Amino acid sequence: MNSAASVTAKPIRVALLGCGTVGTQIVRLLTEQADELAARVGTRVELVGIAVRRPNKHREVPAELLTTDAAGLVASPDVDVVVEVIGGIEPTRTWLLAALTAGKSVVTANKALLAEHAGELFEAADASGADLYFEAAVAGAIPLLRPLRESLAGDRITRVMGIVNGTTNFILSAMDETGAGYAETLDEASRLGYAEADPTADVDGFDAASKAAILASLAFHTRVTAGDVYREGISAVTSADFAAARALGRTIKLLAICERVFTTGEDGAPEESVAVRVHPAMIPRSHPLAGVSGAFNAVFVEAEAAGQLMFYGQGAGGAPTASAVLGDLVAVARNRVVGGRGPRESAYADLAVRPIAQASTRYHISLDVADRAGVLAAVAAEFAQHEVSIAAVRQEGRATDASLVIVTHSAPDAALRSTVDKVAGLPFVHDVVSVMRVEGEDS
Amino acid sequence: MNSAASVTAKPIRVALLGCGTVGTQIVRLLTEQADELAARVGTRVELVGIAVRRPNKHREVPAELLTTDAAGLVASPDVDVVVEVIGGIEPTRTWLLAALTAGKSVVTANKALLAEHAGELFEAADASGADLYFEAAVAGAIPLLRPLRESLAGDRITRVMGIVNGTTNFILSAMDETGAGYAETLDEASRLGYAEADPTADVDGFDAASKAAILASLAFHTRVTAGDVYREGISAVTSADFAAARALGRTIKLLAICERVFTTGEDGAPEESVAVRVHPAMIPRSHPLAGVSGAFNAVFVEAEAAGQLMFYGQGAGGAPTASAVLGDLVAVARNRVVGGRGPRESAYADLAVRPIAQASTRYHISLDVADRAGVLAAVAAEFAQHEVSIAAVRQEGRATDASLVIVTHSAPDAALRSTVDKVAGLPFVHDVVSVMRVEGEDS
Repeated sequence: MNSAASVTAKPIRVALLGCGTVGTQIVRLLTEQADELAARVGTRVELVGIAVRRPNKHREVPAELLTTDAAGLVASPDVDVVVEVIGGIEPTRTWLLAALTAGKSVVTANKALLAEHAGELFEAADASGADLYFEAAVAGAIPLLRPLRESLAGDRITRVMGIVNGTTNFILSAMDETGAGYAETLDEASRLGYAEADPTADVDGFDAASKAAILASLAFHTRVTAGDVYREGISAVTSADFAAARALGRTIKLLAICERVFTTGEDGAPEESVAVRVHPAMIPRSHPLAGVSGAFNAVFVEAEAAGQLMFYGQGAGGAPTASAVLGDLVAVARNRVVGGRGPRESAYADLAVRPIAQASTRYHISLDVADRAGVLAAVAAEFAQHEVSIAAVRQEGRATDASLVIVTHSAPDAALRSTVDKVAGLPFVHDVVSVMRVEGEDS
Repeated sequence: MNSAASVTAKPIRVALLGCGTVGTQIVRLLTEQADELAARVGTRVELVGIAVRRPNKHREVPAELLTTDAAGLVASPDVDVVVEVIGGIEPTRTWLLAALTAGKSVVTANKALLAEHAGELFEAADASGADLYFEAAVAGAIPLLRPLRESLAGDRITRVMGIVNGTTNFILSAMDETGAGYAETLDEASRLGYAEADPTADVDGFDAASKAAILASLAFHTRVTAGDVYREGISAVTSADFAAARALGRTIKLLAICERVFTTGEDGAPEESVAVRVHPAMIPRSHPLAGVSGAFNAVFVEAEAAGQLMFYGQGAGGAPTASAVLGDLVAVARNRVVGGRGPRESAYADLAVRPIAQASTRYHISLDVADRAGVLAAVAAEFAQHEVSIAAVRQEGRATDASLVIVTHSAPDAALRSTVDKVAGLPFVHDVVSVMRVEGEDS
């Protein structure tokens, strides 16, 4: 076939930065599938160096490829493509900028770096004509960024909503199943290896916020950085929240949500902006995201013409992430062989990012109140005064007090916060048990 | 951003062949999103002609673009890209070959043509350096072919299984819900516009077989044509089949299944081949594909490194299909602007396609038998003699006879057919009520 003729082209020489779980799998697949990759690319893909911190810790890869000099490897004239699976901002940023500036294509899985410095990296790539691919940075093996960047390039994406962090999803799934609290479930997740020793990046939503920034940038052709993303982690989610969710046929997931928002400007003209947020939310148990458990990821994409799409698969892990990296590597290598280029940064729309206080969502509020006449009326009056419309109410008497659950229609975050503050101060309100956003239902 | 500088490039001039439901949506989106598409491509995308059979029937598109001379439009020096949404083999094949031979890129939604003549079309594209894209040919708006061709290009796909025909899925979903028979449900589907006046292509599985051939070709880097696909439609599915499925917590779906098969050759060496089939199958109600109802499509992809992935969305309809076409149009237009090329045919693996008689699946067999001693023993003996292993048996006495349900372990199609023939001939077997494959469970 075609491959036979073109495999005579010069090999594509690859430098790998980092050789942990993902890097080891990349080395394995590059070796095991060398012939297949050559046929797909049109020439051989050769690994010429692996930069690691401690070479003697990597007995599973060829010793002659190991080096501690990442900068030197990147600068080597024998390198065409740099694959980066180290993570972190510096010194990785410096190395990748050097590679791109020198016209070397980059494949990276580094969501934190992209969520902060994508603009700078793309500018370096553009200046030299190099490619920058990063499918593995979001949702592991799930082909998601390429569909957003390319398949839906003729459509207008309105919303992206998904579960993009496996650690928090594992913890929330376990809390839902066992009824246990957050702290003990986190301990169990750490023990089983599902949470890192320092779980901050996952449980406080930083990882998901980086991914949301990347998704929003691609979906809305606008530069969105991690700092633009409203972020709430899962550490405040309680077993009481889960009990409240369960009573209403819901469960709780940490969602990354990117929305195109249509409003009317002061001059009456229509305005578009972007809202990006990461927070726990109650969703109906019948919602497809409710069934996504453990370390799996799933992302919904809504576009004007395409309608609703869903992508599902393994969001992390060595082999799945390596699969995404190698898909990108084949693409950039093929671009080198045929002389083409992958998609560049697309940020022409340059939409404003809305602050969370202006975002509207539905809320579930669970209160412990005194069990006497007039309570509901007084609480309802506070909601009315802040123009937060109530969709459903459930009151249940107990021994000495009552449980009052209120689900609102879509309301601005700021209005809801003020309402809850006022309600919490009412004399017959003993406790605000749970305040949580509700997603996946009509507003 | 980047777009401003490069929009000075020459416009990309597009000819549209066909202007039915999909074509009309393409014209609408090209017009409404002209500025956005220009920013994404790097230059304007201009519709320069629309070939239709009866120009006076298309009042919703600009009259000055309409022509009845498709061949002339394709040959025009003013056309860079041909978008085809007519369907059928001839004269479409001739027109698209002419376009590709002249170096014009082609975007098509024509699954029947690709399932028969992809090789020839790709050769013409290769010879002239043109692009051939066809995301809309399978699963409508769902980004599926680009992920298979590109995102998973660094992985080894082992299986693709999905629901790829909306009409049959609508009919089977309705039969499941109402308990009605096939003929009346088809009538209802026709009345509601979900089935064509001549539903043969859908209900007899031809449409799904074309799509399966395309999926298998991309997944396994092997030319697979529609004729290579084992095909059973849904017209033989009865309400008794659904009752039998329901009793075991299953439902029935028309599945397209593409598998990489590993066997041992006569010389003891490992051999790889490909098996591609379309047939109704029972799947557990808990399987994600069981919840895909109506006109939706969903496809599972299993790859060695990536693991299991799922893609879900609208499989047909004007706007969703137009979204997929426009995504391809942006890609081929961008390739023209930057001087690159999309992926070519990848058929280097050239695996053999296995006949269905060699395929192994699990089976569900439902029999009406005489309610007396020794029946089960005799039936089981027939299965044993053909080396078809039984996984589960359920026998229920009724007034004068009994219902005997057998679910097998994975067994070769040929062995199962012989077994059923023999069992049907046993004197105490009154009727073979249902024989159906079982998928989505461990074998």
